[in-house]
Amino acid sequence: MFFKSYLRFYFSFNKELRKSIKNIFGFYPENIFIYKLALRHKSATLKQKGGLKINNERLEYLGDAVLGLVVADYLFKRFPFKNEGFLTEMRSKIVNRATLNKLSNKLGLKNYMHIGNSEQYHSRSAGGDAFEALVGAIYLDKGYNFTKNTLIRYILNLHYDIEQLQIEEISYKSKMIEWAQKEKHRLEFVMQEEKEAKGKSRYVVTTVIDNQHLAKAYDYTIKGAENLSAEKAWAKLTKLE
Amino acid sequence: MFFKSYLRFYFSFNKELRKSIKNIFGFYPENIFIYKLALRHKSATLKQKGGLKINNERLEYLGDAVLGLVVADYLFKRFPFKNEGFLTEMRSKIVNRATLNKLSNKLGLKNYMHIGNSEQYHSRSAGGDAFEALVGAIYLDKGYNFTKNTLIRYILNLHYDIEQLQIEEISYKSKMIEWAQKEKHRLEFVMQEEKEAKGKSRYVVTTVIDNQHLAKAYDYTIKGAENLSAEKAWAKLTKLE
Repeated sequence: MFFKSYLRFYFSFNKELRKSIKNIFGFYPENIFIYKLALRHKSATLKQKGGLKINNERLEYLGDAVLGLVVADYLFKRFPFKNEGFLTEMRSKIVNRATLNKLSNKLGLKNYMHIGNSEQYHSRSAGGDAFEALVGAIYLDKGYNFTKNTLIRYILNLHYDIEQLQIEEISYKSKMIEWAQKEKHRLEFVMQEEKEAKGKSRYVVTTVIDNQHLAKAYDYTIKGAENLSAEKAWAKLTKLE
Repeated sequence: MFFKSYLRFYFSFNKELRKSIKNIFGFYPENIFIYKLALRHKSATLKQKGGLKINNERLEYLGDAVLGLVVADYLFKRFPFKNEGFLTEMRSKIVNRATLNKLSNKLGLKNYMHIGNSEQYHSRSAGGDAFEALVGAIYLDKGYNFTKNTLIRYILNLHYDIEQLQIEEISYKSKMIEWAQKEKHRLEFVMQEEKEAKGKSRYVVTTVIDNQHLAKAYDYTIKGAENLSAEKAWAKLTKLE
């Protein structure tokens, strides 16, 4: 009797999950078990002999790489006349942890997740991780091209405003410039280049107002570092005033 | 007359490049021009109206993501019982800048590259970048699945010893770099050279995170001091978290 109702519960959960995948990503999954694994947060880890942990971390590792390529390819083709710095910046706007967490909330993934400890869910970036793990699951279940098309159609086109994201980048720097001109302050963005271990360059930009260092930020593009720095400075400024 | 010999030179270069691609990756390219672009180092940039720079940076951006996914997928399937931490570490051993530069040298990519300033070639990671750009070119020319199969067959299976990589001492330096990139911390290895009585140099490396000195170590090689310092920092970090 118990077993029967357990089975009913078990399969009704699978059925509901299948429907939700269809609602979010527009297709019915083949292998529902990978998707269930993708929704198992590490706070609900099942331990196996040999030390393997049964949770969504392996799928998140895979999905992170899938998402990285899908977005890189999408931007590469959408912006054929933009340089690498712009593309890198746009990608990080699309796949950064905060954005993916928001996306995950919007999609309601939490309702389908196995979570052991709800505090851990909130303090860490469990929502975004689960989204990435789902991407990994789609990739394993349906292959790369299907995943790419699905993500472009059901995620990038529906949940992102790419035009808006492009504009967002300039806002803080120009906000600062406008403010300084209006209030007759002297504004400088001081840039330093730092060599990193891998031979890459990282840029440090300090926003300086009337010789006073207000905020410092780092990025792999000058533009990015300027904007981050300006954003921090803006935050300080609006609290000060 | 000049034009004729130029044409002959031009097409013989293309022919040679096609052959080299065949030798390295086992197939003849469809669109040779993408591969030529992949081999144009930024020191040989052609500038276009509108600010677009014609060099391999866009392709490197794309290829980096392709390579990331191919290696992630390969390791995911090759090590079904390993946790995400192991996979991440193995991947960084395979695709880190130093390894890709070595690979690029081994493949002789430099012979086919357009380089404007040979100093820039050496100081930067031009070789590894060109390899990544070539991967991007294959992806555009032949699609994801072809690229994946090609890279596994002609690069991972032929030029890497995965068993050996597993055993190789973990580079704490690369662990730290990865952690910092993932968690968005600023990481620096600050190096000081100390002259000793006998004329030997001793190196002091401090691992600095977000301007906070975390660990210091001494050694007679820079590499050794860096790794020791990173190891100490890693130990502190894993206790902190």
